Amino acid sequence: MKCRKCGERAVINMRHHKLALCKAHYLDWIPEQTQRFIEKYSMFEPTDRLLVAVSGGKDSLGLWDVLSRLGYSADGLYIGLGIDEGTGYSAESHKRCEAFARERGLNLIVVDVAEVEGATIPVAASLTARGRGKPCSVCGLTKRHVMNQAARDGGYAVLATGHNLDDEAAVLFGNTLSWSVGYLSRQGPVLPAHADGLVRKVKPFCRLYERESAAYALLRGIDYIYEECPHAAGATSIYYKELLNRLEADRPGAKLSFYLSFLEAKRQGVFAAERDTSIEELHSCTRCGQPTTAPGLCAFCRTWEQVRSRRPVIA
Amino acid sequence: MKCRKCGERAVINMRHHKLALCKAHYLDWIPEQTQRFIEKYSMFEPTDRLLVAVSGGKDSLGLWDVLSRLGYSADGLYIGLGIDEGTGYSAESHKRCEAFARERGLNLIVVDVAEVEGATIPVAASLTARGRGKPCSVCGLTKRHVMNQAARDGGYAVLATGHNLDDEAAVLFGNTLSWSVGYLSRQGPVLPAHADGLVRKVKPFCRLYERESAAYALLRGIDYIYEECPHAAGATSIYYKELLNRLEADRPGAKLSFYLSFLEAKRQGVFAAERDTSIEELHSCTRCGQPTTAPGLCAFCRTWEQVRSRRPVIA
Repeated sequence: MKCRKCGERAVINMRHHKLALCKAHYLDWIPEQTQRFIEKYSMFEPTDRLLVAVSGGKDSLGLWDVLSRLGYSADGLYIGLGIDEGTGYSAESHKRCEAFARERGLNLIVVDVAEVEGATIPVAASLTARGRGKPCSVCGLTKRHVMNQAARDGGYAVLATGHNLDDEAAVLFGNTLSWSVGYLSRQGPVLPAHADGLVRKVKPFCRLYERESAAYALLRGIDYIYEECPHAAGATSIYYKELLNRLEADRPGAKLSFYLSFLEAKRQGVFAAERDTSIEELHSCTRCGQPTTAPGLCAFCRTWEQVRSRRPVIA
Repeated sequence: MKCRKCGERAVINMRHHKLALCKAHYLDWIPEQTQRFIEKYSMFEPTDRLLVAVSGGKDSLGLWDVLSRLGYSADGLYIGLGIDEGTGYSAESHKRCEAFARERGLNLIVVDVAEVEGATIPVAASLTARGRGKPCSVCGLTKRHVMNQAARDGGYAVLATGHNLDDEAAVLFGNTLSWSVGYLSRQGPVLPAHADGLVRKVKPFCRLYERESAAYALLRGIDYIYEECPHAAGATSIYYKELLNRLEADRPGAKLSFYLSFLEAKRQGVFAAERDTSIEELHSCTRCGQPTTAPGLCAFCRTWEQVRSRRPVIA
């Protein structure tokens, strides 16, 4: 297989694009594509200050790398979750993010949940109803809160996450199986800012297959953490990813066309009515000031109040 | 496993309903459920004259049986498609429909496509661009035309088809993967009548799993044709059915909840705007008078004109 652009040996063949590329052209192609998506979905402007949420994985570090190469002013945000029991997962991912930033002279903001809130995610999950069995719910809630808070505090215009096409298609698939119109109406490459304090969120890699994102990180020599979070095993999203992978294997491009035709249907106004109503109903949390759907404490503050009230005091 | 109603040995266990039933109670349960769906979706009234499209398979003969048991005035419509090369598929299915009607004293209308239009479906498909490779497109087009014509000619209020949940979920899945909003907006247990000559279409079995419909036909001793149409092999709908079967095996009830949550989203108006526009655009075919989306000949008449112009004349 030869590179379509120069005839050298190709390192990747993307059947859905009918495109094979060599290493050098692939490493150019990814930023070009990313820039195209940034413009197509009006994600942000060249002068905007960006905050990239990084986990130490291929997608988020790859995204930070691409945004920096494209000349954007992009700082990183690492959230220490304290998922270390036996695996050292959080410690390892923190190390990769620090090293990545240091080697490139980039600025990394670190928020350690245990330091700020008084408990790691696994401990918090064990102390709240929300965390029964799996800490993923408390973790997602906490990350969303910390990301928005850090972006507001730092005056960033936009928060960028490394979600790839496989992530987005799996979420879309789940929301479609249950026809969760509220979620469907909000899913997309951009979640707009909200006057009451929700920072704009964007996903510049949303049209890259996971495989493409992984190839980019590998070929760029990015030292990322290969392991998934140890709590991810058995997650519904992974089940949907496997199902979609089978579909993709039988029909190359199925995942991309599923996601793109959804975006097109949205653009044509399928969920327009729903989106309007869902945005009206936000209140300000009486403790942290972040937006929430009901008056009083937000889900984050309620959960962590519960954690603090139940945590055994260790001398 | 015991019958929930009488404690006798159960013949079927429906995990998604947490319900096991013996033969006698199952044979009552299916008509009860069907009557519930007829009312829930306002399909038709007790005094309406119904035409049931029958293929000789378990679903359509089972439906005809159930509607008759429920006391509805329901005639059958068998369409002879001439799919007999090597398999005798059409001849066999015709025989089952005739025997079913005769044994129960029911009225069966027979329309033979080759007699009326001058060629069997396989011959027509081989002579038209629409039929390249597979006759399924010409066949579907022709069946829809003949069904509507027969229902209009006979003055029937409603045309009923035997589509089961597996059929509906597979169609929904395909339309969702491509986000075909036009098709999504029209899918449902009822396709309303249209002033310009579209007869009301209903699917009273749309919430029964294929397995439940098959069990009913078997336990009722209905002599139906087991074989699928020989042209169905490799069809996309069968591929989607297999994918949904894997999902159902892992998460019992997934197929039903997918379909029901879709209907609920529709009821709440997700596709409301789309539905309104799609109904406005019908014209009357200048040859057959049936409704069509563009002025002039309908797709059925155009296709069969082409068949007749290309058919070799045999002395």
